[in-house]
Amino acid sequence: MPGTEKFAIGIDLGGTNIKTGVVSSAGKIIDQTSVKSNAELGPKHVINQIITTAKTIIRKNKVNIKAIGIGTPGVVTVGKGTVENPPNFPGWKKINIAKILSDKLKLNVYVENDANAAAIGEMIFGAGKKYDSFVMVTLGTGVGGGIIINRKIFHGAFGAAGELGHVTIDYKGSKCNCGSYGCIETYVGNRYLKARIREELSEHKDSIIWQLLDNHTDEVSPRIIQQASEQGDPFAQQVIKDMGIQLGAALTSVSNLLDISTFVIGGGVAGFGKPLFNSISETIKKRVLTSIKPRVKVIPAKLKNNAGIKGASSLVFYKH
Amino acid sequence: MPGTEKFAIGIDLGGTNIKTGVVSSAGKIIDQTSVKSNAELGPKHVINQIITTAKTIIRKNKVNIKAIGIGTPGVVTVGKGTVENPPNFPGWKKINIAKILSDKLKLNVYVENDANAAAIGEMIFGAGKKYDSFVMVTLGTGVGGGIIINRKIFHGAFGAAGELGHVTIDYKGSKCNCGSYGCIETYVGNRYLKARIREELSEHKDSIIWQLLDNHTDEVSPRIIQQASEQGDPFAQQVIKDMGIQLGAALTSVSNLLDISTFVIGGGVAGFGKPLFNSISETIKKRVLTSIKPRVKVIPAKLKNNAGIKGASSLVFYKH
Repeated sequence: MPGTEKFAIGIDLGGTNIKTGVVSSAGKIIDQTSVKSNAELGPKHVINQIITTAKTIIRKNKVNIKAIGIGTPGVVTVGKGTVENPPNFPGWKKINIAKILSDKLKLNVYVENDANAAAIGEMIFGAGKKYDSFVMVTLGTGVGGGIIINRKIFHGAFGAAGELGHVTIDYKGSKCNCGSYGCIETYVGNRYLKARIREELSEHKDSIIWQLLDNHTDEVSPRIIQQASEQGDPFAQQVIKDMGIQLGAALTSVSNLLDISTFVIGGGVAGFGKPLFNSISETIKKRVLTSIKPRVKVIPAKLKNNAGIKGASSLVFYKH
Repeated sequence: MPGTEKFAIGIDLGGTNIKTGVVSSAGKIIDQTSVKSNAELGPKHVINQIITTAKTIIRKNKVNIKAIGIGTPGVVTVGKGTVENPPNFPGWKKINIAKILSDKLKLNVYVENDANAAAIGEMIFGAGKKYDSFVMVTLGTGVGGGIIINRKIFHGAFGAAGELGHVTIDYKGSKCNCGSYGCIETYVGNRYLKARIREELSEHKDSIIWQLLDNHTDEVSPRIIQQASEQGDPFAQQVIKDMGIQLGAALTSVSNLLDISTFVIGGGVAGFGKPLFNSISETIKKRVLTSIKPRVKVIPAKLKNNAGIKGASSLVFYKH
C-alpha cells in the first residue's frame, strides 16, 4: 500500500447505529460510514454487520491499516476483548468480539467499554493530551465516566470501574434508575434534568424558557436552557449553576478518593459552556482536600462530532 | 545469626507514640517497645528517636532482620519514602525518611501512609489474605481508608489516594473538618458521632445510655453505645444501624467507581460488631450496581492490638 502513515479503523458500536471510520494517527477521520445496528436481530447479525462494514471501508480506502479499535457498551474483560451483556443488545451474554473480528479481518482488534474509549480518545487526540491523569465525564442521557491514571485507563478490580454516574451526592435523594438514591445521574443526567425542569418551570412563570418553548414544555432540552441562560434568564442560569454545584460535589468525592484533579467534561450538556464549567470548578476548589486544591482543572472535551469513532480508533494508538 | 527465618522491624509513627516491633513473616510480634514521639521538638528529634529505638531492639533480638517498614501520617511519595507534612508533626515539610534511616541502619526501609500500611497489613497478615482487591476502612476519630487492587496498594495519580472519609453522602450536609460538607466522616467519625449522640440523647429520656453514663453525657463513647445496644436499647441500636446505612452509602459510591466489592472494616467503632456489619452490607447490596451485587462482602479487620506495628512490618513482606 502506498504511503507509510498508519491508520486505524474505529468502530463505535451503539444501540442504534454502528459507526465505522478510517482515522489517522493525528485523529483525523478520512472516511466514515454508518449502518443500523438492528441489535434486536441478535449478536450474530450485529457482528456480521461490523465485519461487512469494516471489510468494505478497508477495501475502499487504500491505506495502511494498523489495527481495529472498538468502543462498545457493557463490561469488557480487560486484555481479552470479551464483551458482557451490553445494555440494549438482547442475547449477547459473553462474546469474545476481539477474537471473532481479528480472525475474520486479519488485524489486531482492541476492545474497550465506550466510556473508557472516550477517555482514551481525549488522552490520545483531545483535551487530555497534556495530562497524565484525569477523569473523563460524559454528560448525556446518563452520566458516564472513564478514569486515566498515569496514561493508562483504570479498570478497577474487575474491569467495570468508572461508573461516575452512580456516585451519590445525597444518600436520601431521589431514586435512580440503577436502584440506588441520589446518584449524580439523577441530578444532571438528561432524562432526569428535563423532568425536573418541567416540574419547576411552573414556579417560574416569567422565565424566557416559556417563550422559547412556545408552551410545549415537553420539548425542554439542554439547548433551550442554554439559550435562555445566554439571554439572561435567572431560572436557566440557576439550573446550570446548580448542575455545576452537584457535579462538583460528586467529582470532589472522586478527587479525594483517587487523588485526581483534572476533569475533562464532554457530552451534550457540556454545551452549557463557561457558566457550567466555572460552577463545577469553583465547587471542587471549595470542597476538595487542601493538598489537591491548587491542582484542580475542569476543561471541556475536544472530541465532539464522531467522538465515538475517534475514541474507538484511539485504542489502536494507545499503549496497552 | 542463628535461624533462617526472616523478621521485619515495624515502626508505627504516631503523633503521640513511636511504636516499634520485631515481627515474623507470619505477623507475630516477638518483641516491641514504645516511646513518646515528642513531635513538638521537630523532625530531627523524632528521627533520632526512631533510629535509637530501632538500633536497640535490633541489638536485643538476635534474629535475621530482612528490612524495616514504617507507617506514617501524611502523604508519602510513592517509591521514594519521602514524607510530606504529616499532621501534628510541626516543621516537617518534606523529609526523605527512608534514605535517612537506611543510611543509619544499613537496612532497606519501606515507607507508607499509615492508612495504606493498615490495608497492606490486612492483606499480608489479616482479613484480606484471600482477596485480591478490597477496600480497608478504619473507623476512629476520623475515617481512614486504603485501597488494594490486585494485591497492590492503589496510590492514585499523586500518591494520596484513598481518602475515604471525605467521600460525601450529602452535599448539603454538615460541615466537615476538611472544609467540605456531608463527608462520611461527619456521620461516623468518632468526634462527630459523639457530639451527635449527646445532642439527640435529650430526646431519648428512657434510653439505657443515660443509666450507663450516670448522667455524665460528656463521657459518651462507642463502648457505651455498644453496651446499650446489646442490652436492647432502641436508640443505641438505631444509632448503629444508621451508621451502617451511612457508611454503606459511601462505600457504594466507592464500589461503583472502583469496581471493588470487598470491604474490610477496622478501628474502634468496628467493635459495634454484627449489627454494624449487617447494616453496612445490606445497604451496599441494596444500592450498588447490579453487576457488583453478588460479590459484596463486608468483613471485620483481623489486626487489632498493635495493628500499627503489624501494618508497618507487613511492608517488608509485601511485593512492591
